[in-house]
Amino acid sequence: MAEPAPNRLTRENQPTSEGPYRAKGSPQRDLDAACGFEVRDDFERFNQCNDIYSRAQWDERVRSKKAIDWFKGMFIPGLGARNAEGYGVKDFALRNAGWMGTNLVIQRSLDQDRVDAFGDYIRPFSEPNPDKIEVPSPAEMSEEIKRVSRLFGADGVGITAYDPRWHFTDNFSIKTLTQKPYRFPEDLPNVIVVITAMHYEAVKCYPSATAGVAVGHGYSKDCELVQSIATYILNLGYRAIASVNDSSQAIPYAIQAGLGEYGRNGLLITKDFGPRVRIGRIHTDLPLTHDKPIRFGVREFCDTTCRRCAEACPPQAISHDAPTERVPTQSQMKGIRKWQVDPERCFKFWTNQGTECGICMRVCPYNKDVSRWWKRLYYRFWQRLAASPLKRAALKLDVALGFGKRMKPSEYWRRFRTR
Amino acid sequence: MAEPAPNRLTRENQPTSEGPYRAKGSPQRDLDAACGFEVRDDFERFNQCNDIYSRAQWDERVRSKKAIDWFKGMFIPGLGARNAEGYGVKDFALRNAGWMGTNLVIQRSLDQDRVDAFGDYIRPFSEPNPDKIEVPSPAEMSEEIKRVSRLFGADGVGITAYDPRWHFTDNFSIKTLTQKPYRFPEDLPNVIVVITAMHYEAVKCYPSATAGVAVGHGYSKDCELVQSIATYILNLGYRAIASVNDSSQAIPYAIQAGLGEYGRNGLLITKDFGPRVRIGRIHTDLPLTHDKPIRFGVREFCDTTCRRCAEACPPQAISHDAPTERVPTQSQMKGIRKWQVDPERCFKFWTNQGTECGICMRVCPYNKDVSRWWKRLYYRFWQRLAASPLKRAALKLDVALGFGKRMKPSEYWRRFRTR
Repeated sequence: MAEPAPNRLTRENQPTSEGPYRAKGSPQRDLDAACGFEVRDDFERFNQCNDIYSRAQWDERVRSKKAIDWFKGMFIPGLGARNAEGYGVKDFALRNAGWMGTNLVIQRSLDQDRVDAFGDYIRPFSEPNPDKIEVPSPAEMSEEIKRVSRLFGADGVGITAYDPRWHFTDNFSIKTLTQKPYRFPEDLPNVIVVITAMHYEAVKCYPSATAGVAVGHGYSKDCELVQSIATYILNLGYRAIASVNDSSQAIPYAIQAGLGEYGRNGLLITKDFGPRVRIGRIHTDLPLTHDKPIRFGVREFCDTTCRRCAEACPPQAISHDAPTERVPTQSQMKGIRKWQVDPERCFKFWTNQGTECGICMRVCPYNKDVSRWWKRLYYRFWQRLAASPLKRAALKLDVALGFGKRMKPSEYWRRFRTR
Repeated sequence: MAEPAPNRLTRENQPTSEGPYRAKGSPQRDLDAACGFEVRDDFERFNQCNDIYSRAQWDERVRSKKAIDWFKGMFIPGLGARNAEGYGVKDFALRNAGWMGTNLVIQRSLDQDRVDAFGDYIRPFSEPNPDKIEVPSPAEMSEEIKRVSRLFGADGVGITAYDPRWHFTDNFSIKTLTQKPYRFPEDLPNVIVVITAMHYEAVKCYPSATAGVAVGHGYSKDCELVQSIATYILNLGYRAIASVNDSSQAIPYAIQAGLGEYGRNGLLITKDFGPRVRIGRIHTDLPLTHDKPIRFGVREFCDTTCRRCAEACPPQAISHDAPTERVPTQSQMKGIRKWQVDPERCFKFWTNQGTECGICMRVCPYNKDVSRWWKRLYYRFWQRLAASPLKRAALKLDVALGFGKRMKPSEYWRRFRTR
């Protein structure tokens, strides 16, 4: 990451969304209902400059030496390490080793004022094959793409339609520290959404730098995965853009693609791994069919019964209340009613720790180990219980069995499973 | 890959090894005996310009349009695809999708006249942490490095000592198409050798472009793995250089590190996956203990009983005879007695196919599916049989049970397992 230049945007001169996309009369209303989105008439597309990571560069209310060091620590050995369990040199070393694959992707285009995978989509490696293959059946092609995705490591795949609402209005320039034009093709009708599961045991160590290996390695796997799928499609003669945390909102796309529901903690809750996933996308004009959103009880469970994430969050960034469209910060999307998470509180806690936090992922009852068949069996049983009228019993059982408890990083080092 | 410039080296002006390393009186003699190497007094270190891939650029006896297209096909969608089962657009697409992670590593340093991971070691991402951790026990650190390696996807790890004999004398410049100075630090005493297993079912499809996904994805996983481990070490404050097919001979290092034996097909035969692996290395000054070579019957089985690879090789590149130090081509190491494989014949077959071949990997009886416990059980039983006096029965049983038979690429597409 380049040394940040002086701020160009001030509190008075902060970016706003240009050309808001009004959801009124959107053909997506039915789909939204199935997804559980409540998109209001005052909905506005998001400006990437308002993203908390962008604001950490230009907005003096977020920017600080700690925040800049938080970014740099991924790249600079030893930065952030201190004499505290879970925050030592080895813990940061493990985390940064996990980030390696991601760092290479980020580094690839920095000289072009791009932060591939985080600020900007990943530059395609090649042009499409000029000899396009014929796709007689989009349904069969969808099946094939899903199998190919799993071959390259996807833990789940869904397909949905391009939805301009989830795309940004502007991008953030890491060079000028102000906005730059958003150039994302609008003519790629299909979005392949892939998920990769993160290490269960590492996530158990939140808060700690040790746990960060789950995020870093998750992103690294994700970056390679989306590029492999994009390469496959380019080789078939179709356009394909690989995307990770850039360009659009990953979670609504994942929900539309049938990969899970939205949880109180602001995360995608998947059926197989709960919130313990990273999300990648491939935008393409390859003819594909679309999946339908799924429901398995998350919304009702978060709504009526569970506050574990909200109670466990040290900076109180997660709401205990009902979904709302009121947003306390400019880093949240406007005009969408949902459980709100305050990115300013969240990120400030991260920078104070010197590494990201994932307590809300750890304590979520949908976060369970599924590495053994009997654990998967229990997980299915528990999900059914949580979706039944016995929600409170499900929550009590979860707590009684010790799920969500923190693992001490020193214990992680002794016993982490290598596969 | 840059468009090759006119040849600079001719048949008369071919590179020779400078400053040969004589094995006479080498402290490695005992280790060699354990490894089964027979390094003779006229041993010479290898010049990378004599590598068949380098010669495909500069030597008109190897270079051809087909050979150049063979390289380019990894990067250019559709190149090489034709109307033949296993060689269609989708087959090459799958292969190239597998190569994606590797291609990014290669692309990273091309403008510096480097082909990272194949011609040159992978440029480290950062300097070591200036605050070096203390390593009280090299044995414990070895254990830790092995676990961390497995966490990031290694299927096997061994550690051995730096051995100058396996290092090149010169590197090959992709820019000038002649030799360039070999700059590899000689003061990194320890070499961590990692293996990653390749897709069993894809390997069953050799010869075909479909099977190439096993190699491509294997390399991609390997590239990320060695860099993750190197990053871990750099973060601990020690030097670390990640290396894949560059800079030194992977197989003798892997054998010295106790990862397997040398087979008639010229490949490393591992105990867990037979020849179906890719090999990566990390050179470091992190204090570590060394592993011992292993023997589990491969040498005797190849020697007295099995000729499956030699019989199955279409261009007859594999010897039916006993180990010898006679080398028919300049692409082989001089002064080492072993089963010889003719890289010129092998590579010519590859370029005629438009993709690499791995028939010798497919038919090797040590190549077995180990994805289920009962398959692993059978594999262990078979290995014991092959190491017993009943070698011939082991070979017959293997053939009778249909191991090593080719899977048709169309069948692969129908049934490949995604995990």
